[in-house]
Amino acid sequence: MAVNQPGKPDKGAIEETRHRNLYRLLKPESIAVVGASDDRTKAGSRLLRSLSGFAGHLVAVHPQQKKVQGFSCFPSLLTLPEAVDLAILAIPAEHCIKVAEDAAMRGVGGILTVAGGFAEAGANGANLQLRLAAVCRDSGLRLLGPNTSGFLDPHRGCLATFAPGVQRVRKGRIGVIAQSGGINISLSLLIGRLGEGISLAVGLGNAVDVWFDDVLAAMADDSNTAVIVVGLEGIPQGRKLFDAVRAATTRKPVVALVAGRADIQEFAMSHTGNLMGSYQRTVAALTQAGAVIVDSSEAAAQAACVLANGRLSPRERPRIALVTGQAGPGLLIMDGLKSAGIEMPVLNVETIRRVQSYLPQLTFVKNPVDTGLPLPCFPEIVDAVAADSQIDVVLAFSLAETVVVDSAPALAAVKKKAGKPFVFGTLGESDDLHEMIETLHKEAIPVVQSPERLALAGVVLAADARACWRLSHTDVVDELLPQPRLEGEFDEHRAKTILEHYGICTPKRVLCQSLEDAVAAFRTLQKPVVVKIAAADITHKTEAGGVHLNIINEHQLSKAVYALGRIPTRYPGRFLVEELAPSGVELIVGGLRDESWGPIVMLGLGGILAEALEDTAIRLAPVSKLDVDEMLDSLRGRKLFDGFRNLPVCDRAAIHQAVLAISQLLTEHPEVREVEINPLLVYASGAVALDAILGLRDGSGDKDRQESTRCRE
Amino acid sequence: MAVNQPGKPDKGAIEETRHRNLYRLLKPESIAVVGASDDRTKAGSRLLRSLSGFAGHLVAVHPQQKKVQGFSCFPSLLTLPEAVDLAILAIPAEHCIKVAEDAAMRGVGGILTVAGGFAEAGANGANLQLRLAAVCRDSGLRLLGPNTSGFLDPHRGCLATFAPGVQRVRKGRIGVIAQSGGINISLSLLIGRLGEGISLAVGLGNAVDVWFDDVLAAMADDSNTAVIVVGLEGIPQGRKLFDAVRAATTRKPVVALVAGRADIQEFAMSHTGNLMGSYQRTVAALTQAGAVIVDSSEAAAQAACVLANGRLSPRERPRIALVTGQAGPGLLIMDGLKSAGIEMPVLNVETIRRVQSYLPQLTFVKNPVDTGLPLPCFPEIVDAVAADSQIDVVLAFSLAETVVVDSAPALAAVKKKAGKPFVFGTLGESDDLHEMIETLHKEAIPVVQSPERLALAGVVLAADARACWRLSHTDVVDELLPQPRLEGEFDEHRAKTILEHYGICTPKRVLCQSLEDAVAAFRTLQKPVVVKIAAADITHKTEAGGVHLNIINEHQLSKAVYALGRIPTRYPGRFLVEELAPSGVELIVGGLRDESWGPIVMLGLGGILAEALEDTAIRLAPVSKLDVDEMLDSLRGRKLFDGFRNLPVCDRAAIHQAVLAISQLLTEHPEVREVEINPLLVYASGAVALDAILGLRDGSGDKDRQESTRCRE
Repeated sequence: MAVNQPGKPDKGAIEETRHRNLYRLLKPESIAVVGASDDRTKAGSRLLRSLSGFAGHLVAVHPQQKKVQGFSCFPSLLTLPEAVDLAILAIPAEHCIKVAEDAAMRGVGGILTVAGGFAEAGANGANLQLRLAAVCRDSGLRLLGPNTSGFLDPHRGCLATFAPGVQRVRKGRIGVIAQSGGINISLSLLIGRLGEGISLAVGLGNAVDVWFDDVLAAMADDSNTAVIVVGLEGIPQGRKLFDAVRAATTRKPVVALVAGRADIQEFAMSHTGNLMGSYQRTVAALTQAGAVIVDSSEAAAQAACVLANGRLSPRERPRIALVTGQAGPGLLIMDGLKSAGIEMPVLNVETIRRVQSYLPQLTFVKNPVDTGLPLPCFPEIVDAVAADSQIDVVLAFSLAETVVVDSAPALAAVKKKAGKPFVFGTLGESDDLHEMIETLHKEAIPVVQSPERLALAGVVLAADARACWRLSHTDVVDELLPQPRLEGEFDEHRAKTILEHYGICTPKRVLCQSLEDAVAAFRTLQKPVVVKIAAADITHKTEAGGVHLNIINEHQLSKAVYALGRIPTRYPGRFLVEELAPSGVELIVGGLRDESWGPIVMLGLGGILAEALEDTAIRLAPVSKLDVDEMLDSLRGRKLFDGFRNLPVCDRAAIHQAVLAISQLLTEHPEVREVEINPLLVYASGAVALDAILGLRDGSGDKDRQESTRCRE
Repeated sequence: MAVNQPGKPDKGAIEETRHRNLYRLLKPESIAVVGASDDRTKAGSRLLRSLSGFAGHLVAVHPQQKKVQGFSCFPSLLTLPEAVDLAILAIPAEHCIKVAEDAAMRGVGGILTVAGGFAEAGANGANLQLRLAAVCRDSGLRLLGPNTSGFLDPHRGCLATFAPGVQRVRKGRIGVIAQSGGINISLSLLIGRLGEGISLAVGLGNAVDVWFDDVLAAMADDSNTAVIVVGLEGIPQGRKLFDAVRAATTRKPVVALVAGRADIQEFAMSHTGNLMGSYQRTVAALTQAGAVIVDSSEAAAQAACVLANGRLSPRERPRIALVTGQAGPGLLIMDGLKSAGIEMPVLNVETIRRVQSYLPQLTFVKNPVDTGLPLPCFPEIVDAVAADSQIDVVLAFSLAETVVVDSAPALAAVKKKAGKPFVFGTLGESDDLHEMIETLHKEAIPVVQSPERLALAGVVLAADARACWRLSHTDVVDELLPQPRLEGEFDEHRAKTILEHYGICTPKRVLCQSLEDAVAAFRTLQKPVVVKIAAADITHKTEAGGVHLNIINEHQLSKAVYALGRIPTRYPGRFLVEELAPSGVELIVGGLRDESWGPIVMLGLGGILAEALEDTAIRLAPVSKLDVDEMLDSLRGRKLFDGFRNLPVCDRAAIHQAVLAISQLLTEHPEVREVEINPLLVYASGAVALDAILGLRDGSGDKDRQESTRCRE
């Protein structure tokens, strides 16, 4: 295995090796357990026992022993008769470097390091971790961990983990990837309780090498996996995750459980930061990438079990029908669906007529259909509703009364007959339900056990179908032209000049440096005017006394100019005289470059409310018009844009243009750190940027050369 | 049983009978099933079978049979040798009146009517229902239903329901009351799955007689019941429910599941209605009454199972500590707790030191304590944290690894030792968990099976303790004096005059009826002034062109007066000249009389945003200062009141005063339908009502007598 040997093989060969070795690690034909032990308290013993059902070849490595737990034992990886695909290192951190080097030398595909004591444990550990990473980088050896509980593939008996109880995790169609081993095991157990099983469950641990993108790609390829669940904490390489999730969702549904919701409540001090908490960014980015976001581990498990039975066809607004045997639970289901904005159209007249023929006394038949109580004809009613051309997916609920339980075979035929997804919700004693669940499962009909779980099923099926539709309808972004690099610091005038270049309107203004300038400007502009300080170091101009509104004569003008002159700044003597813009609906439109997620655009309510209410939506740039519409529709204050009270019906095209401009600016100018229009005044026709800030990344700005800037002013 | 006999016994005697008969109905010693049957498809057969384990005396009633399912059978209730406590009517609606009359005549305590075909089924049914109600009203006979699946008391084998599978509902400490039979059974099944049982579960059905208030009172008295769960749909008599819940929560925790969340999203057209959707009213009222609100049937069941093991002592902000064996699930738990605003103080230094002595390599020990992985000393760590004087309740989580499962006896001792509540969260295979759960249950330590369920446990324990604290700290409302009744219609001037009487400040104004009046007023007022139409039929004055701002000279004044004169109104020639109030933070403060809930006060963001964002809080009147603070703190825009950007730190006392004034006005004047100050401008010191509306209930206003009103202007 030359490519794994020391030396400097070319980059392409290493990449090829890395790719092949990832699959050897995750789907090994042969495994060596390094640090294998007969002592039941040791991880090396527990790992070997976990692997007792492994379908491939298993050997032990121990410096002295000849046999461990009955398996052949070798003194080191170098002495193995054949190179194994996976070496599991159940040894202390400080011994891992040497063994990793041996593994690379011997042509092992990948190693799994369970020990802690690396980057999470201080400077020494961090150093060990760097050395481990270097071995992998140079050789193409893959590494899962360190500090991970491992992974499990019940299909092949490859339970490469010391976590207990995993023997009972059954094989199935759900792939799980989590940063935390605890979440990985928790999700696997919760999925097992719902009667589904695992295709592959991976805990990434410190993730020095193998990360979400690798495992997402492997699971997208894996024929055992029908749906992927990811459990996320902090995301250091968000943009890479975004790309990996987007690639995976086009092939399989991805369900995401994101920790850190509470962060959004914490008051961040930085100006833009508090509008875009990192949880909000993660959720927005993953949604944009096509994942279905859930808010608990139980919801993640349930969503995966539903989606494992098949997804809907891509559709902008999937339409759901509900048939319920009991009105009370039906109300809870409707609550869940409608709160999530699900479309529940009224059934076709023919469907209603057909349903009515089964129900002598009706409570409600339009959608939902309430059968009043469970009836023997329950399957016929579900059938009739499923046949409706208006409907993309049918949900049915009934308590497990005998009459319903007995109709399981008829219900099991619904999906195939209608050719569209069907989910059954129920509640009852397990003994009553067991056979019914089996019967429906055989036809890939998920059975969920509570009213709210049925609503969740509808919501996640719809979210996944919407995501697929969105990915296939996102406008192609034009090829971006390389742009001259911006430099220096940006006051309002410079920021607005850049924005004008991107097609954003601003009020007519003149940059002045003296009272004489101001008077000359005043005479050419429409009254009243605004006089504002133009200094890059004063971003909150109003608070600094740097804004004088409603100037209607030259006396007021000179007073204002004099007052501005007294404000301390690094850029004295620069101010704007600007025409007063008519009032409109105030939005904030901005963008920033996130360390993890890259360029992000933001849209929200403008002015002081933007900050106080945090009513904002974000997307990764570049964005499409469709993204902008989704952002607008997601705002709590969305009514304000559609002709609320005496406000105008806002010009959506002008909002599109502003957000797309910000998106383009961020994409074309990687040196821009943040840009913000606050407020953007939107009218029935057009929009105007009343104020703007723009900041470059550290190192991009060069204060001394500001005057000789090359930017496109 | 003279009191049940026809005639007109006095009201007190009937009330006493009704009270006694309620307990006879719910805790019967003897039951007759009317419509008993040997035909297994009939409800009368299923009911008799359900009751086969009944601890009391059971007889059947059937016109012809002598024995049904082995039970003695009588031709009618009148022919029973002894008056039974409960007669269950498993007969069609049209026969129920006669049998109810028989029951009243024979001295039966209560009847349970399972049949549908009453008010829910049209005019004929409604008529039958009225007649049934009349029999009860005149005799003191109690009635559960009609159109209910019945009730179950597993402690006494009294399964008075035709719902199947109820034999398996086990006895326990949780009382369930639901309008819907389906919800009643669903909650009972979900509680059973969590290993807890039912004390009494009641479906109210059409609730002609026995309602929430009756059953809440009975369950508060019932020694088998430790916690009460209510499932609510539409609430026709909200104020009665409020009183009943408040009385119950002082004795036992009440958990409430409210359907209708989606309604809050629907755009209601009426002016105040859309700010206070009925779900919002129900949730606000029940919270105010001390109930713990949950958002799903599974959460209701889980919350009840936790609270059945005991509640916390009343406390304003209960303090929670978390010990977790795995960091990943710990993050999810923290998310749930912190999102709900739970206090998690840093542990005492001595506690931290003690915890550190068990943990050689620490990840985090302040709160939560993350033990890194499960250790044999897990119980000692939980013990140390539980002993901390800062902490009111301890939550601990670990996956069910052997080392933790083995420590169950030590964990079971924690609660008793610390003398404070302790909840354990875990996940594992059922076989591993069974014994552990039993061991902890014996010490009244709830075991919940997912990270988010542990967070829920903390949140509901805290919410209940906070509710108890609040009920015991609500200011006593002063005795209200009877007030002269208000009459007529209220324009801004009249409305403000009433509000001034209640201590609310308004800008200085003069009511004018001519240009001469206006000029005279203008000369006495501070400039600029506002000129506004004063017509009770124009509530949206700005939209109608009825507001002229910033009037600084008499020319502008006369133009404004002339323009106002052209606005069509039923009350021409009345307008206000008013001093312009300085700008402040805009609130809306209002109140209305809800048909179900009675007087309600509302507080929210003012101006156009109040409507667009629906950022409002409501409480039933009368309210206390504590309520007002809670309302303010619950607003999304709460930052705006605390000195946000260049806004003032708002005068809380002035806000208190305004809300308490509205509360008092509504309480003293039952003829007031709605009152609203929008905006209330709040300053660093004081607040001013800039605009106000007031409306009386239909029949309260007398347009013709408006000029001779007796109100306190």
